[in-house]
Amino acid sequence: MKIYDFPTGPYPTRVRIALAEKGLQSRVRFVMVDLYKGEHKKPEFIASKNYSGTLPVLELDDGTCIAECTAITEYLDALDGVPTLTGSTPREKGVIHMMSKRAELELLDAISVYFHHGTPGLGPTVETYQNPEWGLRQRDKALRGMHYFDAVLKRQPYVAGETFSMADITVIGGLIFAMLVKLPLPEECEALQAWYARMLERQSVRNQPVFATLTRAS
Amino acid sequence: MKIYDFPTGPYPTRVRIALAEKGLQSRVRFVMVDLYKGEHKKPEFIASKNYSGTLPVLELDDGTCIAECTAITEYLDALDGVPTLTGSTPREKGVIHMMSKRAELELLDAISVYFHHGTPGLGPTVETYQNPEWGLRQRDKALRGMHYFDAVLKRQPYVAGETFSMADITVIGGLIFAMLVKLPLPEECEALQAWYARMLERQSVRNQPVFATLTRAS
Ligand SMILES: N[C@@H](CCC(=O)N[C@@H](CS)C(=O)NCC(=O)O)C(=O)O
Ligand SMILES: N[C@@H](CCC(=O)N[C@@H](CS)C(=O)NCC(=O)O)C(=O)O
Repeated sequence: MKIYDFPTGPYPTRVRIALAEKGLQSRVRFVMVDLYKGEHKKPEFIASKNYSGTLPVLELDDGTCIAECTAITEYLDALDGVPTLTGSTPREKGVIHMMSKRAELELLDAISVYFHHGTPGLGPTVETYQNPEWGLRQRDKALRGMHYFDAVLKRQPYVAGETFSMADITVIGGLIFAMLVKLPLPEECEALQAWYARMLERQSVRNQPVFATLTRAS
Repeated sequence: MKIYDFPTGPYPTRVRIALAEKGLQSRVRFVMVDLYKGEHKKPEFIASKNYSGTLPVLELDDGTCIAECTAITEYLDALDGVPTLTGSTPREKGVIHMMSKRAELELLDAISVYFHHGTPGLGPTVETYQNPEWGLRQRDKALRGMHYFDAVLKRQPYVAGETFSMADITVIGGLIFAMLVKLPLPEECEALQAWYARMLERQSVRNQPVFATLTRAS
């Protein structure tokens, strides 16, 4: 398998965490796509890898391209027949997919829109249209999202319940993106802070390249 | 099971189609939530049913609430142990989830944003903030999305390949929403038109309440 990747991107990091959780890293070859040069918006990339022009994209040996972190995680988690990230029972699957999608809508994707519209984002060559007002609204939505997930984590140890899942990975992606854009995690979100500290102890999370960048920056 | 529903909404229709495909309609009680009165934005609904304030929401007999069409479809499809909508093999799961998410991003969700921001949407009481420029951009994105799905359906009979799946249901949701907001399906999108005509022949699709509304309106 091949993954079109930007090693410190919050979304690619979600898939890197999933790979590590499943012990699949050695089966993947990473191909760097430079977001700051807009390589992901080149017609060739759009036509042959991912119509939406985003990373990561998983390319199977038969040439099939799978974009979207959730879809890639579904694929990887099903490979060994023992789904540990996306749920086994109907109820688990439903709740994990809901919480992961909610973490995108209310946190990660909102911060992404803030980055691309409310800050210089990837720079003037890539960001050919910006809507700052929309960007700032999404930043505020993400801050509310943090309070929501804080409330969730007050009553249960993981985002989707009693065990680690894809939904935790999505919230981790959100908090990574928040740090990259210097959006501080509110102090009063103690349960979210404590959960995040626990997540950073997991080997699959701690070893991600993005944390080297974040440490250097701070 | 209970479903908080707005019978003619494009998203609730996705779940209604999934229910019909799985033969589960008789196991569900529908509870009407009036979108035009903003009942889905009431603090009580947000706190107890769906933080994101959207429909549909599936409530299980133990009180668990599952929001998000994709998550609800995952749940319903897993109930009988024979997943016909979300894929069996890793590759099927990956491709179906990708294409369904892409149909949200590039078509259905884009039209939804257009509806809420580029048209009067649900009216002034519910639409307390609108960003028309963003709304119109999303309309144009959806039109490009139609051309993309047309190209996909030129080379394969269904959105995710050789069989009907959740991804088809999501595109159906997109075309329903397009009709509700009077966004015409481009004439040159012949493969998409032909596929849609085939979809409307499926009993699970044809019998949806939204089509009575659409016929009356035209
Ligand atoms: N919905 C996609 C979003 C992926 C995404 O936004 N990835 C970022 C990299 S961290 C990207 O490609 N951004 C470039 C851009 O939007 O121009 C997913 O879940 O995989
Ligand atoms: N991401 C949600 C979106 C659902 C959605 O937007 N539903 C519409 C009903 S058709 C809604 O509740 N709109 C009301 C609003 O956004 O105010 C899903 O996939 O279920």
